[in-house]
Amino acid sequence: MAMDRVLTVFPERTVRPPAGFDRLLVAQGVLDRCAKLAEHSDEPGRITRLFLGQGVRGAHGLLRRWYAHAGLPTRIDSAGNLIAHRRAERATHQTRTLLLGSHIDTVPNSGPFDGTLGLMVALATIEALADVALPFHLDLVAFSEEEGVRFARPYLGSRAVAGRFEESDLSLRDASGVSLRAAIESYGLDPSRMSEAAYDPGKTAGYFEVHLEQGPLLDSVNKPVGVVGGVQGQSRVMLRFSGDTGHAGTTPMNQRRDALVAAAKLITEVEDYGRSVEHLRSTCGFCKVWPNVRNVIPGTVELSLDVRHALDEIRRAAVDALLETAERIASHHGCTLELLERSSQKAVNVDPQLTAQLTHAVAAVTGGDPFELPSGAGHDAVIVSELCPVAMLFVRHPGGLSHRPDETVTLEDVAIAVDASVRFVLLMAEQEKR
Amino acid sequence: MAMDRVLTVFPERTVRPPAGFDRLLVAQGVLDRCAKLAEHSDEPGRITRLFLGQGVRGAHGLLRRWYAHAGLPTRIDSAGNLIAHRRAERATHQTRTLLLGSHIDTVPNSGPFDGTLGLMVALATIEALADVALPFHLDLVAFSEEEGVRFARPYLGSRAVAGRFEESDLSLRDASGVSLRAAIESYGLDPSRMSEAAYDPGKTAGYFEVHLEQGPLLDSVNKPVGVVGGVQGQSRVMLRFSGDTGHAGTTPMNQRRDALVAAAKLITEVEDYGRSVEHLRSTCGFCKVWPNVRNVIPGTVELSLDVRHALDEIRRAAVDALLETAERIASHHGCTLELLERSSQKAVNVDPQLTAQLTHAVAAVTGGDPFELPSGAGHDAVIVSELCPVAMLFVRHPGGLSHRPDETVTLEDVAIAVDASVRFVLLMAEQEKR
Repeated sequence: MAMDRVLTVFPERTVRPPAGFDRLLVAQGVLDRCAKLAEHSDEPGRITRLFLGQGVRGAHGLLRRWYAHAGLPTRIDSAGNLIAHRRAERATHQTRTLLLGSHIDTVPNSGPFDGTLGLMVALATIEALADVALPFHLDLVAFSEEEGVRFARPYLGSRAVAGRFEESDLSLRDASGVSLRAAIESYGLDPSRMSEAAYDPGKTAGYFEVHLEQGPLLDSVNKPVGVVGGVQGQSRVMLRFSGDTGHAGTTPMNQRRDALVAAAKLITEVEDYGRSVEHLRSTCGFCKVWPNVRNVIPGTVELSLDVRHALDEIRRAAVDALLETAERIASHHGCTLELLERSSQKAVNVDPQLTAQLTHAVAAVTGGDPFELPSGAGHDAVIVSELCPVAMLFVRHPGGLSHRPDETVTLEDVAIAVDASVRFVLLMAEQEKR
Repeated sequence: MAMDRVLTVFPERTVRPPAGFDRLLVAQGVLDRCAKLAEHSDEPGRITRLFLGQGVRGAHGLLRRWYAHAGLPTRIDSAGNLIAHRRAERATHQTRTLLLGSHIDTVPNSGPFDGTLGLMVALATIEALADVALPFHLDLVAFSEEEGVRFARPYLGSRAVAGRFEESDLSLRDASGVSLRAAIESYGLDPSRMSEAAYDPGKTAGYFEVHLEQGPLLDSVNKPVGVVGGVQGQSRVMLRFSGDTGHAGTTPMNQRRDALVAAAKLITEVEDYGRSVEHLRSTCGFCKVWPNVRNVIPGTVELSLDVRHALDEIRRAAVDALLETAERIASHHGCTLELLERSSQKAVNVDPQLTAQLTHAVAAVTGGDPFELPSGAGHDAVIVSELCPVAMLFVRHPGGLSHRPDETVTLEDVAIAVDASVRFVLLMAEQEKR
């Protein structure tokens, strides 16, 4: 898979947005709508919209009003995905659907653009093309659950759309003990009809998602948008170091089995390893200590390891090496090491054809050579790629720090994203007609 | 102050326990009583006796019965210290008192010997000397609060005895919101008479405490008991590293401000420093991470540092050096460092005369050169040393891991401790008579 690079494009065809399309005006509308959506939250003063919570209910109401105003019939599926529909010209039962969208849920204390920026760019795209005949339906999907916060299971919405929803997940429980099944039912939806949420692969033309980069790369190379060349694979590991508690004042240093010292050595190795391999991301985000008392030598530490890279073999080699290091450290400190969890998600290749179209669209807008970059974060597109070809466009994210209330975008960058999005749909339409 | 070492002793005088003293039989009685005391707890199935809780109430009842059986009048002071009294021969108002004792409270899920072993050895000592005329009173003190669990304030009992109780402590509240004053009152005691708990320094001959080592040193040098050469000083530090949260999948390694990586580097430096200085103990026992989520770069970490050494200047130099290291690490990782707390307790010198007597007593029992070692843990003796000269005897602690339900002692070692304790009181009596 391609790493971040500059693509050289020779646009053969030219498409233009409809006459009267003012991208700065449209972009201002996108930002205004993102701000309005941000008012809907599960808690006052912070942007927190967990799966089918009060914040999502409010946001759905707002979306339905905007969709109705745009003349788009709207439905909600059994996974809580809210879907606006824009009908193709001369539709038959053979007519395919191009999916646009992003997620409506957020992490706790999120920013106003994660998910909603892509949704609102997609809505603006559909509105801009209101008078243009298209050979496919457009479905605008507000995925119900991407972050995985409420049920510790991400992509519930896109799994349903991709026909990958697992029935057993209905038994998952949130922190309050409410099951996923009960959450869906209390939203007025029917979990037994989950399979109807799945799209027919044969009738799905593709999925296109615009998203905040959630990283600093575009900012550092001074590009307004970037074409996603693939989504990094991710390994998730949970380790437990077990040593022995003891009195901090009496146990000599050389007779200790300090689980926190062992964990600390691994944390520094994880950092060093991450710095030594280009484009690798390795993080210990979770660290819990027992008994966690100031004058007691730590007896047990649980530590998470998150490793990502666009190339699966590099990621796997990193995890293997770090687990070997963990074994060596544990043994050196008289601790035992347990591997509580090791799971992974392969890197995702975006679709070459769709991505080529997107690259053309971006080149037409920006006039230069589009910048391609890998996605570090997972996205609904990862799951939808099991249903149909996908392409993604990232919008520059000043500072690059996401999942925070201060995440931001600029009007100019959003304008470029909307322009590119409109041109992408038009290029896809040309191709669909052939 | 002396570090652990072998003392060479030339006993000039010989004292022997009274005829009929069978130290193994007496030691078995000590162990049986420790087991009986362990049945009194605040919670079923675990040994937990917090200050003036239900477990202490039961233990007090048991002690009162044993004391009554031994003919010892018993009182309880306003700090909840239960005190049995053995009168001197031909007492006048000038007659001094030798204090024996240890604490009756425990940490949660404690073992059966921490505190109670010393108490029961002291009781056995008084019983063994029942028919011996002594020139001082013996007061056996069951200190009410040494561990500092319930009110996060250790040594409440010994502070009162030493005349060092602070009135403001009566406003301390436990986890349930009960004030220390209310806890004392609901035990039927009068907090306004706290000052009466203080002994008169001019009439206190000394304090002698037997205690489980709570460390592995005696076990590692194969000695049944050891004479305490001093109590280590202790520094307590709480630090906060603040960096920046970020997406674990997107933020490049070289653009992170990972607070956990900074903390981990300090933890390993604390370990290395501790190993590099003889007899230093340096421990990070508490480590809390925010947000502590697997796919988010840690933004904040709070970390405790506990440093102990018998020599205050070495301890202070260690803390200074480690804080400098922490600053350097924080700055290297783009984090800020806050010093949330830095407090300390000086090293305590035991009394040379009392300790010489104890060394004679141990030499007479074990026949060899007594082993002297520092105390890593704090003890009531630290506080009582502000009232009068103190000496301490440690009993071998197989494995050396204390504050745990599986702490243990052997019958033979306890027998030696009782024997040495009896001889110590006799040697003190000889000295008092001169």
